[in-house]
Amino acid sequence: MDTIAAIATPIGSGGIGIIRISGSAAISIAYSIFRRTSSFAKLVNHESHRFYYGCIIEPGQDSIHEKNRIIDEVLIVFMEAPKTYTREDIVEIHAHSGTAVLKSILNIVIQQGARLANPGEFTYRAFLNGRIDLTQAEGVIDIINAKTDRAHQAAAAQLMGGMKLKIESIINSLLSILTQTEAGIDFPEDIGDEIDPDKVLELLTKSGIEPLKKMVHEYEQAHIIRDGLKVVIAGRPNAGKSSLMNRLLQKERSIVTSIPGTTRDLIEDSLVIKGVPIVLTDTAGLHNTDEPVEKIGIERAYRHIKEADLILFIIDASLEINETDINIYKTISHKPIILVMNKSDLIPDNSYHIPDYWQDLLWIKISALHNLEIDSLKEMIAQTAIKEAIEYESSLIPNIRHKQSIEKSLKSLIAAQQGIEMGMPFELINIDIQDSINHLGDVIGKTIREDILDHIFSNFCIGK
Amino acid sequence: MDTIAAIATPIGSGGIGIIRISGSAAISIAYSIFRRTSSFAKLVNHESHRFYYGCIIEPGQDSIHEKNRIIDEVLIVFMEAPKTYTREDIVEIHAHSGTAVLKSILNIVIQQGARLANPGEFTYRAFLNGRIDLTQAEGVIDIINAKTDRAHQAAAAQLMGGMKLKIESIINSLLSILTQTEAGIDFPEDIGDEIDPDKVLELLTKSGIEPLKKMVHEYEQAHIIRDGLKVVIAGRPNAGKSSLMNRLLQKERSIVTSIPGTTRDLIEDSLVIKGVPIVLTDTAGLHNTDEPVEKIGIERAYRHIKEADLILFIIDASLEINETDINIYKTISHKPIILVMNKSDLIPDNSYHIPDYWQDLLWIKISALHNLEIDSLKEMIAQTAIKEAIEYESSLIPNIRHKQSIEKSLKSLIAAQQGIEMGMPFELINIDIQDSINHLGDVIGKTIREDILDHIFSNFCIGK
Repeated sequence: MDTIAAIATPIGSGGIGIIRISGSAAISIAYSIFRRTSSFAKLVNHESHRFYYGCIIEPGQDSIHEKNRIIDEVLIVFMEAPKTYTREDIVEIHAHSGTAVLKSILNIVIQQGARLANPGEFTYRAFLNGRIDLTQAEGVIDIINAKTDRAHQAAAAQLMGGMKLKIESIINSLLSILTQTEAGIDFPEDIGDEIDPDKVLELLTKSGIEPLKKMVHEYEQAHIIRDGLKVVIAGRPNAGKSSLMNRLLQKERSIVTSIPGTTRDLIEDSLVIKGVPIVLTDTAGLHNTDEPVEKIGIERAYRHIKEADLILFIIDASLEINETDINIYKTISHKPIILVMNKSDLIPDNSYHIPDYWQDLLWIKISALHNLEIDSLKEMIAQTAIKEAIEYESSLIPNIRHKQSIEKSLKSLIAAQQGIEMGMPFELINIDIQDSINHLGDVIGKTIREDILDHIFSNFCIGK
Repeated sequence: MDTIAAIATPIGSGGIGIIRISGSAAISIAYSIFRRTSSFAKLVNHESHRFYYGCIIEPGQDSIHEKNRIIDEVLIVFMEAPKTYTREDIVEIHAHSGTAVLKSILNIVIQQGARLANPGEFTYRAFLNGRIDLTQAEGVIDIINAKTDRAHQAAAAQLMGGMKLKIESIINSLLSILTQTEAGIDFPEDIGDEIDPDKVLELLTKSGIEPLKKMVHEYEQAHIIRDGLKVVIAGRPNAGKSSLMNRLLQKERSIVTSIPGTTRDLIEDSLVIKGVPIVLTDTAGLHNTDEPVEKIGIERAYRHIKEADLILFIIDASLEINETDINIYKTISHKPIILVMNKSDLIPDNSYHIPDYWQDLLWIKISALHNLEIDSLKEMIAQTAIKEAIEYESSLIPNIRHKQSIEKSLKSLIAAQQGIEMGMPFELINIDIQDSINHLGDVIGKTIREDILDHIFSNFCIGK
């Protein structure tokens, strides 16, 4: 494979910036541009995984004259395959982290024959070369993007191979069922006993169906830790949705005017409340309208409400509840709701009446404009998230991709289970079991399609 | 000294993030939190400057049970004093660059006994422990902040000790003059010849005054490469200064209204034109006013004009030139000027008259509003900068601090020179020479005051 290079540290001013080179030419490229500082001599040899002090020069002019062409004082480390991140030869150049200096070094490395790495290409090579499985590669993205301690813990567990081990152990159990039953099919006379459907059923349930069901359940319980609690602000036009959004975020994210229908696009942003990541969406005011742009906005709002973990149902407390409010409530009533009575500063206490069947809702009176009770509302949101997620103990949490494959795998196993119960021949049952194994193979990347792989690695940053 | 720790890479998502620990406890702290991944065993021993693969754990619970407490998969390197950046023991932990993960590791390191490093404290220790001089420390800041290739080259030359060598060689020459003449003073009978004032004068001039003069000249010629060309936009109220500022920056930096006197604060921003860094300042409209806030703004504008390398003198081409314009010109006429005739779309060609004595100014007709001839103006600005700096050959450029000390040193040497010419006794002359040496000592940080040191290192980022 060709040799790739990229800046591996975040862009910005800082103490250390790293250029990472991976591939068969990595070491020779590094030799051509690295000099000992004392003598400007080339390195004669190196030990793997050891730091050398020196400087990067623009090659071409040798000897003492190149003194003016020194790019930076660096530490360099040569890591020889296979004990490296990619299992290829890797060189890391540790320079100062300034934009101009890192760009200069990267340019020189590329002039010497490397090419710029694609996003995630180092990790992709680690995956292709078998150092990590796909769940570990995903753990790398997750650990980089983790915004909270709990998300970080889940990512670390996945990165260290927790998910891989779990999936592999289920695959192995299923494979052993296949081996046993196929032996019974192919050489029935050689097997002391016939295939015992009850035993197979027990094995299938205990080491296949049950752990997979548990993982789906874990996803549903705990994906909030990973993905954040999806909170959607919904309500009729001009109820104060955008003002509330801005208050919760403590910044001017949505444009606020007194004109109903100001917000049309979905405005999304995130915040952390009590360690729980919250993904907050402001939506178009929900009502009947013929205005075409607003109409699209309202459709999008409804689609988003479907996926929400929690709706902040906002009403204008200074106005009577009208049919629009009632209609909105009907479309969201199946979801967890907090009823947010905005503009509560405009009405005296206890003078506000809501329909009887709203009485059981969690509710709060606030004023987005005057910043009243916003912290209490945040507290209520956090409580919801905690109820959903915080008691969750294990740190391994499937992501949505895992969950989807696990569900498919589970579906095949349940088909196999039913087949056995109905006394179907194992020739047919084993097709379902094999199918189930294949779906689990997708999770760890054994059998996965290339376009899905591409999609996963496109979420990486360059240099990883 | 106590053991310090910090995140040494820029903050952000990225492949690699580094925690750096320096001090006598660095290695023991690292041992307590690092485990081999395969066995979760502690490291038994290490070679200096070698990468080890493993993971960081939250210590306290040993054995296999801490599996859930893995913070990240890392590479770790122990660098033993004195061959390190600070000349103390240094450990670097190379983790993934995510906010949560790096903060977690840093917290654990601090729980184990390190303290958070101050900005620049690693480099400060490198300076205190004699690994680098003050000009090299400044080179570190410069190389991190360098925005252009030329600025980066200058910084690299300084970082590699170019300035230090230059200053030290002058100090050594002056010291040898002191040694010779003091011998002549103390033991006149032991010296074959008397002190030869002509010889001393020649030495003083050749190896002291001339190189120092050259360095001051180099500063004046080339500091633009380092510091950028200071360009100030000046003109009467409502001439279009802020519109021009925004056009040049290609963003809405200054607030633009049709109300004269909108800009009061100095608005500063930077851009790069043809590789030359430009520091652009928008100022309050210059005129006589009693409005107190505007008055302060105008005073500030005049102060800034004094330090400018180039004035963009902007007039409103749609109006007649008035006394205000004439008065402004008088205050800036000693500076390099480009006369910018704004709103030129409002007047027919050649119909505009400017005073005769403005005819020799560089001038250009533009429209900031309609984006006319802005690129030509940029070209003119770049030309000015190039005239000032680009032909400059050497890559070593003194900074303003160096220049100020060098000028003081030069002043003392010239006093010594005059003393010798006037036949003053060397007892007195040598006081001036010693004085000159002390000022040069300031440049490399030998004799510098602590408050100045603090000021220099406060410009560093944390982790460097």
